[in-house]
Amino acid sequence: MSDKITIQEPKGKLGILTPGMGAVSTTFMAGVLSIRKGLSDPIGSLTQMGTIRLGKRTENRNPLIKDFIPLAPLENVVLGGWDVFEDNAYEAAMHAKVLDKDLLNELKSELEQIKPMKAVFDKNYVKRLEGTHIKTGYANKMELAEALMDDMKKFKEENGCDRLVMVWCGSTEIYIEEGEVHSTLEKLEEGMKNNHPDIAPSMIYAYAAAKMGIPYANGAPNLSCDVDAIVELAKQTGAPIAGKDFKTGQTLMKTILAPGLKARSLGIDGWFSTNILGNRDGEVLDDPDNFKTKEVSKLGVLEQVLEPELHPKLYGNLYHKVRINYYPPRGDDKEGWDNIDIKGWLGYKMQIKVDFLCKDSILAAPLVLDLALFLDLASRAGMKGGIQEWLSFYLKSPQAAKGLKPQHDIFVQLMKLKNTLRYLAGEDLITNLGLDYYD
Amino acid sequence: MSDKITIQEPKGKLGILTPGMGAVSTTFMAGVLSIRKGLSDPIGSLTQMGTIRLGKRTENRNPLIKDFIPLAPLENVVLGGWDVFEDNAYEAAMHAKVLDKDLLNELKSELEQIKPMKAVFDKNYVKRLEGTHIKTGYANKMELAEALMDDMKKFKEENGCDRLVMVWCGSTEIYIEEGEVHSTLEKLEEGMKNNHPDIAPSMIYAYAAAKMGIPYANGAPNLSCDVDAIVELAKQTGAPIAGKDFKTGQTLMKTILAPGLKARSLGIDGWFSTNILGNRDGEVLDDPDNFKTKEVSKLGVLEQVLEPELHPKLYGNLYHKVRINYYPPRGDDKEGWDNIDIKGWLGYKMQIKVDFLCKDSILAAPLVLDLALFLDLASRAGMKGGIQEWLSFYLKSPQAAKGLKPQHDIFVQLMKLKNTLRYLAGEDLITNLGLDYYD
Amino acid sequence: MSDKITIQEPKGKLGILTPGMGAVSTTFMAGVLSIRKGLSDPIGSLTQMGTIRLGKRTENRNPLIKDFIPLAPLENVVLGGWDVFEDNAYEAAMHAKVLDKDLLNELKSELEQIKPMKAVFDKNYVKRLEGTHIKTGYANKMELAEALMDDMKKFKEENGCDRLVMVWCGSTEIYIEEGEVHSTLEKLEEGMKNNHPDIAPSMIYAYAAAKMGIPYANGAPNLSCDVDAIVELAKQTGAPIAGKDFKTGQTLMKTILAPGLKARSLGIDGWFSTNILGNRDGEVLDDPDNFKTKEVSKLGVLEQVLEPELHPKLYGNLYHKVRINYYPPRGDDKEGWDNIDIKGWLGYKMQIKVDFLCKDSILAAPLVLDLALFLDLASRAGMKGGIQEWLSFYLKSPQAAKGLKPQHDIFVQLMKLKNTLRYLAGEDLITNLGLDYYD
Amino acid sequence: MSDKITIQEPKGKLGILTPGMGAVSTTFMAGVLSIRKGLSDPIGSLTQMGTIRLGKRTENRNPLIKDFIPLAPLENVVLGGWDVFEDNAYEAAMHAKVLDKDLLNELKSELEQIKPMKAVFDKNYVKRLEGTHIKTGYANKMELAEALMDDMKKFKEENGCDRLVMVWCGSTEIYIEEGEVHSTLEKLEEGMKNNHPDIAPSMIYAYAAAKMGIPYANGAPNLSCDVDAIVELAKQTGAPIAGKDFKTGQTLMKTILAPGLKARSLGIDGWFSTNILGNRDGEVLDDPDNFKTKEVSKLGVLEQVLEPELHPKLYGNLYHKVRINYYPPRGDDKEGWDNIDIKGWLGYKMQIKVDFLCKDSILAAPLVLDLALFLDLASRAGMKGGIQEWLSFYLKSPQAAKGLKPQHDIFVQLMKLKNTLRYLAGEDLITNLGLDYYD
Repeated sequence: MSDKITIQEPKGKLGILTPGMGAVSTTFMAGVLSIRKGLSDPIGSLTQMGTIRLGKRTENRNPLIKDFIPLAPLENVVLGGWDVFEDNAYEAAMHAKVLDKDLLNELKSELEQIKPMKAVFDKNYVKRLEGTHIKTGYANKMELAEALMDDMKKFKEENGCDRLVMVWCGSTEIYIEEGEVHSTLEKLEEGMKNNHPDIAPSMIYAYAAAKMGIPYANGAPNLSCDVDAIVELAKQTGAPIAGKDFKTGQTLMKTILAPGLKARSLGIDGWFSTNILGNRDGEVLDDPDNFKTKEVSKLGVLEQVLEPELHPKLYGNLYHKVRINYYPPRGDDKEGWDNIDIKGWLGYKMQIKVDFLCKDSILAAPLVLDLALFLDLASRAGMKGGIQEWLSFYLKSPQAAKGLKPQHDIFVQLMKLKNTLRYLAGEDLITNLGLDYYD
Repeated sequence: MSDKITIQEPKGKLGILTPGMGAVSTTFMAGVLSIRKGLSDPIGSLTQMGTIRLGKRTENRNPLIKDFIPLAPLENVVLGGWDVFEDNAYEAAMHAKVLDKDLLNELKSELEQIKPMKAVFDKNYVKRLEGTHIKTGYANKMELAEALMDDMKKFKEENGCDRLVMVWCGSTEIYIEEGEVHSTLEKLEEGMKNNHPDIAPSMIYAYAAAKMGIPYANGAPNLSCDVDAIVELAKQTGAPIAGKDFKTGQTLMKTILAPGLKARSLGIDGWFSTNILGNRDGEVLDDPDNFKTKEVSKLGVLEQVLEPELHPKLYGNLYHKVRINYYPPRGDDKEGWDNIDIKGWLGYKMQIKVDFLCKDSILAAPLVLDLALFLDLASRAGMKGGIQEWLSFYLKSPQAAKGLKPQHDIFVQLMKLKNTLRYLAGEDLITNLGLDYYD
Repeated sequence: MSDKITIQEPKGKLGILTPGMGAVSTTFMAGVLSIRKGLSDPIGSLTQMGTIRLGKRTENRNPLIKDFIPLAPLENVVLGGWDVFEDNAYEAAMHAKVLDKDLLNELKSELEQIKPMKAVFDKNYVKRLEGTHIKTGYANKMELAEALMDDMKKFKEENGCDRLVMVWCGSTEIYIEEGEVHSTLEKLEEGMKNNHPDIAPSMIYAYAAAKMGIPYANGAPNLSCDVDAIVELAKQTGAPIAGKDFKTGQTLMKTILAPGLKARSLGIDGWFSTNILGNRDGEVLDDPDNFKTKEVSKLGVLEQVLEPELHPKLYGNLYHKVRINYYPPRGDDKEGWDNIDIKGWLGYKMQIKVDFLCKDSILAAPLVLDLALFLDLASRAGMKGGIQEWLSFYLKSPQAAKGLKPQHDIFVQLMKLKNTLRYLAGEDLITNLGLDYYD
Repeated sequence: MSDKITIQEPKGKLGILTPGMGAVSTTFMAGVLSIRKGLSDPIGSLTQMGTIRLGKRTENRNPLIKDFIPLAPLENVVLGGWDVFEDNAYEAAMHAKVLDKDLLNELKSELEQIKPMKAVFDKNYVKRLEGTHIKTGYANKMELAEALMDDMKKFKEENGCDRLVMVWCGSTEIYIEEGEVHSTLEKLEEGMKNNHPDIAPSMIYAYAAAKMGIPYANGAPNLSCDVDAIVELAKQTGAPIAGKDFKTGQTLMKTILAPGLKARSLGIDGWFSTNILGNRDGEVLDDPDNFKTKEVSKLGVLEQVLEPELHPKLYGNLYHKVRINYYPPRGDDKEGWDNIDIKGWLGYKMQIKVDFLCKDSILAAPLVLDLALFLDLASRAGMKGGIQEWLSFYLKSPQAAKGLKPQHDIFVQLMKLKNTLRYLAGEDLITNLGLDYYD
């Protein structure tokens, strides 16, 4: 049994701020309000509904996670955000058409009070959007970051928050590769002052959060907190950060199925994934530059799970293709269709088709909550050094220590998350500890 | 790091005997021969193709399992079996239409030499079969068991085997519940002498194997080694035994998907599973009494994985239905279609459909091999007391110690298996040890 | 060009009466009211939305059917029915959960006024239902028929109707075969007086309608108007009748796809159809006796379309299986999954899977309307002799003249329907006339 | 009953020549040989397996089409073609991996004798192919056409053919629009002499055939015989021509399903079609220019079938998207997945998914045969004026008289085909005659 870590109690209010107040964010916000009123259940949220087994099976100890480890209670959560449109959360949620009108109307007065702060926006990064509610008149990206820090200070004060956490819920930005400017904090800061073109808005948010020691996670696949410069900053300030791209829908299924097939040493010759979706996300991803960001994030998953270098006969020739199609009739009701060409004993071929009629924002919203609460926990527990690999569970592109491959197998991720919680609470571990490379 | 266990080297020949020489068994046999000749790869077999991670990720130690732990090599395996028809393995494989004729013809001479011994058969247990190559003239079930033991002694001697292992590959017998006659070894033996109707042929095989200290596993869902009397016998003789019903096809997918959905605290309202298949197995399962045996085995899986008692709002009202349809156009190419009605954030509903175009015997054959090799390992490692829970990974109805619920989550099962191997080899564990309740 | 037939104008009100006021009937009723108010469109109704091509393609004459032939306008329709429960149409519709509450509430006052008359009910025919609002105290089935006739006279008078039409929307009754008692009108009437057990409630309704010269169609698969005795009566009174079992969902798809595959001389080895549904219909069909009625109706379809006797190499060995599964999570949202094993050039095998996520009552409701309006047209056009084969288009088990096989190919049925309309209007035919065998 | 048309008997040999000897062509060729040897059945071929109903249903006259109308018998067919590679038909068929090796080996000697003539090829039209067996040294496209005519004369003479027919089985060329150069025969011939870039290789073949009065059809979607210039030429020489792009796979399903949904006045909001395939066709279509040709051909289908201008509320907002994905694991086993978003009564939404696991060449091969035999029939029956609209049945982009929209509904097409046959034989028509606009 490990020693119990000292965790500060989650006293006072926790402000959860989302850059982007579109479908995902408003579904999250309305959900928190609805749950708080007892109108709905927080299904899909491990922090609220999940249990954790402790000790031996025969002990029958399976408390709810939220009863086991000190998390900020929903009653103490305050919601806020930034957006490129000035719709308040009620208007934005009505526009997103994810939740029933009846439900939104019951929450109308609270939602209307959540008004977006003006966003940092750069049309080069999201060509299909025309932002109108944006910060203008700043000389450079560093000044924009400072404006965001001012926003946060003001929000904290006005809302009487004890702590803040930030989760990016904005659109997917165009693809950029990690470069020189992202390699050290010094270079990044210089780049921000010089308006270097490879510093995306989301990175300015990440910088602002990390600079203030505020935890940050990125729900989209663009380059943001996952560069050396931000990691360096996070280590300095103690801000927990946690990789990018909410693992929902098709990729969620992929990291469930692939470990299962691999467990049985079944080979895979091809994996074809196509999506249809009609929300704003689909519109943005219809632009090839933005799609590339998503594609890279989605494609990497299988490689790590299957380890073709260790299993060349099983996965050495895997042909993996991912397509996203903007298809307006569906709105937020994304549908993912996968065809998997597998092979078994003596090479005989079989096929698996998975049709997932999902709801994009419904799957993503509880991840905003969980990431926010767990990042806040990490902060209060004094977990060192930026990257929180134990939160890989939630992300298509988890972040790991330099030199380590991230883990994509959702069951390995789950074990990592739960054992980290057990470790924090001084309980016996069941398996590989997520703190392992970060002491 | 645990102490290293002493494992006897797998010297000499290992005889693998299958009661039942139909599609699964002959696909297994032809496969072993084909692999041995270098014509095919043992895909789907963890013992042959799987790797195991040792130590920390940074150590990059990932040997093949078969290079890590002493298993009987395929070159030393001798194949045999019993069947109710007198077709040799070549004829039976041609009839089963699972493998290509060209491949079977390349293996013809070896396969023709594998001639079934006469089977213990009782038409009451499998009404749709008309066995013609069966043991007759015995006064009671105990005498039949003794005849099987004689078969095995003779096989061992004639083939110069050092060790034997038995894996039931026969048809699914009708449903019977565990009763008084199965409760102690004494009562079972008395029942065998009195021809008690609740002692099925498969149980006579299990008895014969266990009596001789020969490891036994059951590939079908009928009651066989999973009764107290056989466990008692196995403990006495040191024969490893390992539950029942090869986990393939739809149930394999179920124990992959359900843990994934549960990991994310997604709710499930309904799970409808239907199958179409046209082989002998399908024909037998078209009889309601035999189907019931299968249904009970298939239905139990979700309940244990999801633990509705711990998560009533997520799984408390799950409606689970399983159907199997005999559909001759498909032959051995089973197809399983699942519809899963799930719910997420605030109760919003989503659906997953999985269509698995599989090949029943292709999925099952490597399990025969793995179970045989691992049971033989258990025997050589002196693993105590009958039940080998660490082999749950392969079975729809794993066997666990009295009072313990079996584990159905395939990822928990995989961890249990691999850590047991690590433990045997004196390596650091990564998680819950499969030996835990059996010392 | 044929001579124009004299058709009486649809003056005054048309009463549409449905035995059974469950999901289908109330969805029909609420729909008519909603459309009349301009709240919704009559999608799925050929009479309201369909066009008909006249003359040559170059003439570009494609009027709406309802503008082309004199049909009763929706404004003149009066709605009524019988049910075994006393819920009014509003309550029944709310209970059925097919239509949105918001819509039903907008129609509440009209729907509440539609109160069911007491039903003729016999629990032997629908074991899963407990009728409480039923006709009691009648000596025999003839008296029950007379009570129904009294109901209709009263309804007509109270509502100021000019004409009535009856469409059975009740549950599927148990399977019975056509027997001696159904063979002549005389025997049927004697049987009704003697309470012959093979005269189902639905047949009593059919008798009552036909006796009064009121058109009758049967939306369910049970034996009702499709017996010689009722045909004899309908010929006497001039009452149009039109077969049975609304063609919706899976069977609709089947009679679309099968003609398409046959058009191309593609062979079919197997067709497996399974359904999941959770409404009252599903519950009733969970009883094997009621399911058999449905199964017989569903199975006959392929045989006639494919004509295996003419194409033995293509369809001679077709294995056709239909399954219906009661699955409560779905309610009225039926789902049909079909697997079709086809073969092409040189016998090479291919597969088609169709997954139809449909809404049972949404598909059936417009058929109630179309059948009612077209039957009323048949009546006003003086179309002779009972059976209206031109309405086969709507039915899983169409009715045809003695000695003639009914046509199941939906495209042949559509042509038959449209040409019959053209004939009635004195337009050039495009193809085989539906009046052909009934002069 | 119409007057019987005089049709010349199909005496002597018929040469069927295919530009392109890849998967489709060699599957067709091997099939003809296999059928002729009695090894296989011509499944999928209406000319060989289909029947035709004559007279009233009560007459029970349903002869095979080939027994009813004088078609060239398979025994009299001679096979030949051109290709950009010099593989003979055996080698090309082995390479295509469509048919079993065993079958091809039984036909080896005949197939090896079918050696391709050198092809007219222009890499600009198919960038992904590297032709090596091509006609070089000709000054212009007119000379290439003449070289093709020489090839045909020589083939006819060497093989003792009475008649020839040509069916394009080559790759899809890049998209080009009909332009000035295609508008009259004179301009086309001038363009050929001047090497106009908008005259594709397939058009040179079409010109050569039509010039010699040889019937021509195009199995691919590129612009070829469907320009005014070629129609003009065909009318002059009496060469029957028949549109383009074999209707197989997904589009076949589309023209089956869409008429069925329209028959019932069900609305369609969206139709998403995706394909995965791994053969040479897939590789060529991975080039956007070639894909565009295919896309245009595939997209037009729904519009004509559904007539949104007549049914704006049902089909006015239909969002139709078609995707083709090169996916090597599949080879010729194309798979098409469709999602159809439909709406019914009162606008309620439903979904249909169709997964078609087809074999591209298996579906196309019998169309080569049928088109060849029917075009030859048209020639012998003296059917006037080039375009044979009655063969629309086989084509994604049927050709119709100037000013007429082509018909895409497969059931209308079938009727047109069959009634044309009835007309030729002097039988009563059942419906709209395919000769209507071409006298």
